[in-house]
Amino acid sequence: MTGPGRALADAEPLVDRVLTRHRERTVAELLRHIPEQSPPYLYDLAGDYPVRPSKGLRGALCLATCEAFGGRPERALNPAVTVEMFHNAFLIHDDIQDGSELRRGLPTLSAAYGVEVALNVGNATNLLGLRRLMANRRELGGELAWRLFEETELMCRQSLEGQAMEIAWIRDNACDLAPADYYRMCLKKTSWYTFLYPCRAGLLVAEGAHTEATRLDRFGWYLGAAFQIQDDVLNLVGTLADYGKEIAGDLWEGKRTLLLIHLLERCTPAERARTERYLEGTRAQRGPGAAEEVRWLSERLTAYGCVESARAAADGLVAAAEREIAEVMEAAPAPAEPSEEAAEAREFLLALPGFVVTRGR
Amino acid sequence: MTGPGRALADAEPLVDRVLTRHRERTVAELLRHIPEQSPPYLYDLAGDYPVRPSKGLRGALCLATCEAFGGRPERALNPAVTVEMFHNAFLIHDDIQDGSELRRGLPTLSAAYGVEVALNVGNATNLLGLRRLMANRRELGGELAWRLFEETELMCRQSLEGQAMEIAWIRDNACDLAPADYYRMCLKKTSWYTFLYPCRAGLLVAEGAHTEATRLDRFGWYLGAAFQIQDDVLNLVGTLADYGKEIAGDLWEGKRTLLLIHLLERCTPAERARTERYLEGTRAQRGPGAAEEVRWLSERLTAYGCVESARAAADGLVAAAEREIAEVMEAAPAPAEPSEEAAEAREFLLALPGFVVTRGR
Repeated sequence: MTGPGRALADAEPLVDRVLTRHRERTVAELLRHIPEQSPPYLYDLAGDYPVRPSKGLRGALCLATCEAFGGRPERALNPAVTVEMFHNAFLIHDDIQDGSELRRGLPTLSAAYGVEVALNVGNATNLLGLRRLMANRRELGGELAWRLFEETELMCRQSLEGQAMEIAWIRDNACDLAPADYYRMCLKKTSWYTFLYPCRAGLLVAEGAHTEATRLDRFGWYLGAAFQIQDDVLNLVGTLADYGKEIAGDLWEGKRTLLLIHLLERCTPAERARTERYLEGTRAQRGPGAAEEVRWLSERLTAYGCVESARAAADGLVAAAEREIAEVMEAAPAPAEPSEEAAEAREFLLALPGFVVTRGR
Repeated sequence: MTGPGRALADAEPLVDRVLTRHRERTVAELLRHIPEQSPPYLYDLAGDYPVRPSKGLRGALCLATCEAFGGRPERALNPAVTVEMFHNAFLIHDDIQDGSELRRGLPTLSAAYGVEVALNVGNATNLLGLRRLMANRRELGGELAWRLFEETELMCRQSLEGQAMEIAWIRDNACDLAPADYYRMCLKKTSWYTFLYPCRAGLLVAEGAHTEATRLDRFGWYLGAAFQIQDDVLNLVGTLADYGKEIAGDLWEGKRTLLLIHLLERCTPAERARTERYLEGTRAQRGPGAAEEVRWLSERLTAYGCVESARAAADGLVAAAEREIAEVMEAAPAPAEPSEEAAEAREFLLALPGFVVTRGR
């Protein structure tokens, strides 16, 4: 095992432990805020995705950042629940948009209950996130509550714009994308709500409304890009049991992954033409008959070493993220005798980059 | 022309004039707040539904309520834009959920661009509504901005719950509903965001965060029920050019309208069994072959006088709304020399109930 992050594989038990602890706490709190009284097919389904097996990464990152920078994590619990609510709403809507069949190893809400119900449950989940934001006013005071509102609005905006970029590429059959386009999309679609927002929220809760909440942005941005690349790689090479989603789903959907961009840069003109032809139209238009083309594309991605080069790019991003978090921490040293949890939270943040590229799902 | 509201038909030019004036102002302001920079298929489509022909009722009601109760309407412009943003987002999502083809006489966003794009545009439109709410802090002060947030959260919650009720009835093939169930659904799905919320927002802006903003609730609730019944009637008997939606679309979708509830209360057991059989399953499962059943249902609705009884119910609600608005206005008399606009706003509110049941779309 070599390369950046790989040396930290020993830290995996710690990362797993912290994730599990924060996830249990966040999910319990999240479920506590889902109304019990409701017409059927609304709040009763809002707890479905959150209790499925998952890492709970976003909530945990919010709690750990708060703790690592001197805050009491219970004060960050509400923002942690908020980001998990918005995340789950995003997944529900994303599954509708992609026509996905599986999420976290089980049928998607849209597959199980139809688009009509799923869209409503997604909207209800967003609204529950908004309610947690409003609760901050009482729990954290008006000033901080507004700052978190502003950060949340920005995060939602970035996510939507990132998703729109991806949709437009598929729709307009963009075949001339450079890695820089992909990274920009990653920053908006993945990094912002998975890493930048939880870090900013954690810093704000720990240090107050006027702190420099952007100082973990580069950490989050590198980490998010590495995370997305790893996700793309797992989508191609993972096994269904570990990954919980359809294998090669990205190829079926024509997603513009770094793998695909690398392939288009490297293949012969004839292969490029065949790939562009395959990518035309929607998944539905291609139909199940496209299986042979998916196999061919998958085989070409392997032949041109696109998995290796994507992994190498992720490793570089992980190394950069490790440098970033170490620098930010050095500038804000832990107290002489930190609590065990605060010390563990700092270890967690330092080990997270390595974890992102070694994870199996 | 007899019955409540009919006497006010002379007021139609006034209602039209006020609606047009407020609509022009609100739409212009709404468009000003749609970002110009954007990936394609996002903000560029957020202005599509708002500029299509419409009454702009919700924004106008917010502005007129503010003006009628002594506020400066320009202070209510932002809340008026907010409610129109949320309304348009709701329509975009609703069209996805219903699989509708037409909206305001043109193809729905989902029909023209697919579910993937439409869902994103709906979410972006909601987010733009949220941004207008946040702008209130600067324009109206923190206290009032929070109150409007609370009202908006409640309004979104009511709308979602009302829509979930309707979805559940179709999904579970509810055939034993009473008019009271329908009215409860109307209050949540229609009245709240079309009437209660704009009135409450208008009162809050006119009179401040601590006013009794609920005192137009009954007015709004009666008006909303009458409005929804009229919408159901138009869906059955309107002409496409006037109505802008598919005719008898509610029957195709199996919607539980007051008309249908009246029919199930009145028809023979054999007719009831046939209706229940028709209503089983989704529109997609029924397929275009259901045209004969839709014709039969439509003919039965006429034969049992369901249109007349629904119209009579709407007339009763209009009369109740007229009494409510007159009482609330008496308790808060206009100043001795109101501005021309303020006087007109009061006339508008008094005439609105009659307008709701005489409108052709």
